Amino acid sequence: MKAAQYLGAESFRIADVEPAAPAAGEVRIAVAYTGICGTDLHVFHGHMDARVTTPAVIGHEMSGTVESVGDGVRDWAPGDRVTVMPLDWCGECPACLRGHQHVCQKLNFIGIDSAGSLQQLWNVPERFLVRLPADLRLDHAALVEPTAVAVHDVRRAGLVPGEKAVVIGGGPIGVLIAVAARHFGADVVVLELDAGRRAAVEGLGFATVDPRATDPAAWVGEWTGGAGADVVFEVSGAAAAMLGATDLARVRGRVVVVAIHPQPTPVNLHAMFWKELTLIGARVYERADFETAIEMVAGGTVPAELLITRIEPLAGIPDAFGALAAGRAMKILVDCQN
Amino acid sequence: MKAAQYLGAESFRIADVEPAAPAAGEVRIAVAYTGICGTDLHVFHGHMDARVTTPAVIGHEMSGTVESVGDGVRDWAPGDRVTVMPLDWCGECPACLRGHQHVCQKLNFIGIDSAGSLQQLWNVPERFLVRLPADLRLDHAALVEPTAVAVHDVRRAGLVPGEKAVVIGGGPIGVLIAVAARHFGADVVVLELDAGRRAAVEGLGFATVDPRATDPAAWVGEWTGGAGADVVFEVSGAAAAMLGATDLARVRGRVVVVAIHPQPTPVNLHAMFWKELTLIGARVYERADFETAIEMVAGGTVPAELLITRIEPLAGIPDAFGALAAGRAMKILVDCQN
Repeated sequence: MKAAQYLGAESFRIADVEPAAPAAGEVRIAVAYTGICGTDLHVFHGHMDARVTTPAVIGHEMSGTVESVGDGVRDWAPGDRVTVMPLDWCGECPACLRGHQHVCQKLNFIGIDSAGSLQQLWNVPERFLVRLPADLRLDHAALVEPTAVAVHDVRRAGLVPGEKAVVIGGGPIGVLIAVAARHFGADVVVLELDAGRRAAVEGLGFATVDPRATDPAAWVGEWTGGAGADVVFEVSGAAAAMLGATDLARVRGRVVVVAIHPQPTPVNLHAMFWKELTLIGARVYERADFETAIEMVAGGTVPAELLITRIEPLAGIPDAFGALAAGRAMKILVDCQN
Repeated sequence: MKAAQYLGAESFRIADVEPAAPAAGEVRIAVAYTGICGTDLHVFHGHMDARVTTPAVIGHEMSGTVESVGDGVRDWAPGDRVTVMPLDWCGECPACLRGHQHVCQKLNFIGIDSAGSLQQLWNVPERFLVRLPADLRLDHAALVEPTAVAVHDVRRAGLVPGEKAVVIGGGPIGVLIAVAARHFGADVVVLELDAGRRAAVEGLGFATVDPRATDPAAWVGEWTGGAGADVVFEVSGAAAAMLGATDLARVRGRVVVVAIHPQPTPVNLHAMFWKELTLIGARVYERADFETAIEMVAGGTVPAELLITRIEPLAGIPDAFGALAAGRAMKILVDCQN
């Protein structure tokens, strides 16, 4: 079978490897599609070489079909359509014992810390599988995992219907957060520098603001009758956006830090104090977020056609990374059978 | 009557002014004691000259006795022992309409934005008065306002009994937060550089750590069985402390920013993400915090004797500011009748 292996230094090869039989308790999945996400891009650029062991099969935004099952597996059968919630927690650390397994202190994130789905056949312990509805297209189903991220971000925000939310950054996760926030009852505006992305976001019925042309704080002030937004999602990863995010929130508003800021980043703590803001960290998802995400993708709430820019075969992975790094695509899926 | 007037540039004078009669709805208070706080110190150093109108009578941590009442005042009579909750909100802005009057968008903080209590007689609208128990000493009662700040911080933290809390900074507010957190059922450790302050804090039964001698993250890790603290209060105002605060918190822990950081300050957003932390801004107090603070001071929970370093007459104000700026005192009260 074919497997895409990251070799380090922006290099991939397609290897022909002997598939292993599923061990006891494992399911072997014929991977249909794997989406490439921002974390995969970090791996590609070598930023996570300390964490991945090369040659590494990465990938975790996936859909597929059960191909065979190992001993003792009773709940799954060949042909079942599945995705994977790629969180392997220890169950014993203080975070797990408190019920926060998804941010286990020893978390193995499958597809980074261990082998992922950019291969034709993938063996996964059955406890990580999530069942997909029969009528959900497998290409669309590859969006379940990033949608679960967005649902988790919105849940962490404690968003309630009727609230006004600002999303800073109109890339794939920003769009999914906007969609999820609207699904949970919010009015949403998206701040985005790129005109093409703004047009796409507007096509989904969202207001947008170009922060280079319009002062976001003034716009949000007018939009909210002088109050400020209930929730601000910082999805851009830009230091200037993080610094300005607190200006957009109302008294007692919440700012959710979605983007990964690897270095310590200046925060307007005076605004945090003055308006009694809450800054919320959010990471991955819980099982309930995955279930909600499946409903949102299957029900058409998630604009899959807009988000999936194109589908590449395994051999197209380097090109796909290049296009994503250059901002020339929203989401690229890899067809893992070809 | 005598009034202490801030003239700008670290200068005060004691003026002899004609007391005004209380207007309708006002109460004239014979001010007993006024504590000097960090905000007053900022005013003294000229950092808030844009906000105060000189000559300015500042001061807001006070106790006193009703001396006379204006027309229409029925709930107060001469001799009543009072303190003042110095928050004058508009009642009409979005924050007020949402119930967050204490952080009103047009808040007049009495004692900064309008005349305060560093004078013998002080006219205050009756709605700001808070009744004191008959057996509460008036010098101790001057600690009610800073205690209310601490109670508010602990309430903002959502602290529940049995949790472990770290207080960074063992000055007056740090000590009051430690006391309030313990009162609400937490185990508390105080990080403090100054040996004298550490000894004082230990004298109250708290564990302390000298962050120059012991790595706080390692200490807290051991203290919490590898989990990290449930709540961290950043009270020091030091940028390094803010940066390190996130290292001390457990997965899903809370960091309350109590100190005022006037400039944008680096925050470890990667730790916020990795552990799904919450960073909480806290400002002043609500009425319930004041009521709890009165109980804590009257009941002896607040170590008034330790906190009140000394009492000065009005003429001693410049010396008092100097001692506070040099860290040579915890809390200095001004005897406003002398």
